Amino acid sequence: MKKHIYIFSPSSAVRDKAAFKRGVLRLKTLGYDVEIDEAALASYQRFAGDDETRLAAIARAAASGADVALISRGGYGLTRILPQINYKAIDKAVSKGMRFVGLSDFTALQNALLAKTGAVTWAGPAVGEDFGTEGQPDDIMEACFDDLITGQGEGTGWRLPKVATKSIAANAYPATAESRLNINNAVLWGGNLAVLSSLVGTPYLPAVKGGILFLEEVHEHPYRLERMLTQLLHAGVLAQQKAVVLGQFTNYKLVPHDKGFKLATVVQWLQNRIKAPVLSGLPFGHVPTKVVLPVGKKVTLAVEERDAFLLWGHSH
Amino acid sequence: MKKHIYIFSPSSAVRDKAAFKRGVLRLKTLGYDVEIDEAALASYQRFAGDDETRLAAIARAAASGADVALISRGGYGLTRILPQINYKAIDKAVSKGMRFVGLSDFTALQNALLAKTGAVTWAGPAVGEDFGTEGQPDDIMEACFDDLITGQGEGTGWRLPKVATKSIAANAYPATAESRLNINNAVLWGGNLAVLSSLVGTPYLPAVKGGILFLEEVHEHPYRLERMLTQLLHAGVLAQQKAVVLGQFTNYKLVPHDKGFKLATVVQWLQNRIKAPVLSGLPFGHVPTKVVLPVGKKVTLAVEERDAFLLWGHSH
Repeated sequence: MKKHIYIFSPSSAVRDKAAFKRGVLRLKTLGYDVEIDEAALASYQRFAGDDETRLAAIARAAASGADVALISRGGYGLTRILPQINYKAIDKAVSKGMRFVGLSDFTALQNALLAKTGAVTWAGPAVGEDFGTEGQPDDIMEACFDDLITGQGEGTGWRLPKVATKSIAANAYPATAESRLNINNAVLWGGNLAVLSSLVGTPYLPAVKGGILFLEEVHEHPYRLERMLTQLLHAGVLAQQKAVVLGQFTNYKLVPHDKGFKLATVVQWLQNRIKAPVLSGLPFGHVPTKVVLPVGKKVTLAVEERDAFLLWGHSH
Repeated sequence: MKKHIYIFSPSSAVRDKAAFKRGVLRLKTLGYDVEIDEAALASYQRFAGDDETRLAAIARAAASGADVALISRGGYGLTRILPQINYKAIDKAVSKGMRFVGLSDFTALQNALLAKTGAVTWAGPAVGEDFGTEGQPDDIMEACFDDLITGQGEGTGWRLPKVATKSIAANAYPATAESRLNINNAVLWGGNLAVLSSLVGTPYLPAVKGGILFLEEVHEHPYRLERMLTQLLHAGVLAQQKAVVLGQFTNYKLVPHDKGFKLATVVQWLQNRIKAPVLSGLPFGHVPTKVVLPVGKKVTLAVEERDAFLLWGHSH
């Protein structure tokens, strides 16, 4: 039986309708049964419909009975409607096996849901940017998505950049003979750094202790990334994590007066301020090659030399 | 006797040294005795010296015995050193009559100091951008600064834009026959919105109840301003204020897909979400004409038709 995907728009309006159509076609070509929410292409100011329209779209996605509820795109629009979202309805859908998939602005819903109900959602692709790209969609992205929708995915692995391996060593984190790092039963959570840091101090930030926090960002200068990380640091969030895993931080511009202040500076600064290891290179963010990651699920993080693994077992 | 100004650099490196020199000269021309911190022109990466250098500069400013400790410029650099700042030393200097003056990134120190000690500092100009401008410095800015340093300032007034007056009326805020709005004994606090929202959930955000929150920002699109305001809203900060006073929000670019989403949209959205009145037009921000405002001082906010006043009496 074909897997059922419900596409909805909880954030910004779909502007690139050609990419959206290509994405829908691609998903159908991949063998999925695709259902499009009635307001998926709605538009009000910057948003995919006014607040009520988008809240109704989220509710319809939760009630759709689909295998996957997939966002059309990110952008902006969820933080302002967080108090009105029916988290119980989403929790109920998730408990019946539905997987909510998205990224960027969707980070707000994912973490608010985790805070309110503990329900697991998935950081992963969006229709337009990922499946609707003008060229061939990324094959790793598609394989990870298919593993998720068919329940085959058990984890993900990636190659650490050299600097990250050094950080672990310098950190003297408990290591076994087989692996330099092995953290079990830790809740994986996080997403977009700007969105996540905007939840600090609100009821929508999950109180995850002993977790693994993953972060990504786009279009933000390293000094702004550092300010966001500083908020998580000063709020005590980072001290409560067993690891911080950095995804892709892309499309920002350094300027001459940075004078050596760059992303690596911020990563090293962060590592110097927390005991937990800071790993880099996670293939997730505003980039074509993105894995899927369970937000709110207990995972194992293992590092052996420069090979890192996030393992969550069968998602069924 | 000449009033004594101590210039220091707690944030970004001074890049425009010509503007800095013009600013120093202008302050001398205005009759002040100007002392320049030894690290005022220090440079490390983006910063006016490394963290230790800037912490030492802040300590020297507090120990200088000057009438005013004035920042060279804002930028970025204070949030990351908030845990290391000696707030007691600044509090002691303030209690002896020293006024710390600055804006933008300085918001971090000002509000952290308020949170830690209750000491009052002043939102006001910086050396380079305000006194060191290529043309004639703004005369209102200079008059307000002189009132502050000589202890003559008792408040400030401005003309509300029409939309703000409507908001008050719609809000049915307690009004007397003489004035539409009269709030007494409310702690004025705030500053730069991005910096202030980055303090939410940390020990450096003052727990001001029944206060008057003023905000300004530069280079931030209205949707980002809304996300920052949303953090203050969801954290419960806005519900605890008796008024929100918006200064100048400047130098952002709207885009075609905003489709009517603009600064006024955000202001109205904010007013719809809080009971307290949201006033606009305060002459403070990244603009030439800026008043000085006491951060942490009890003030009276009065509005009569379109005339708004923030009054704090003699600062001695």
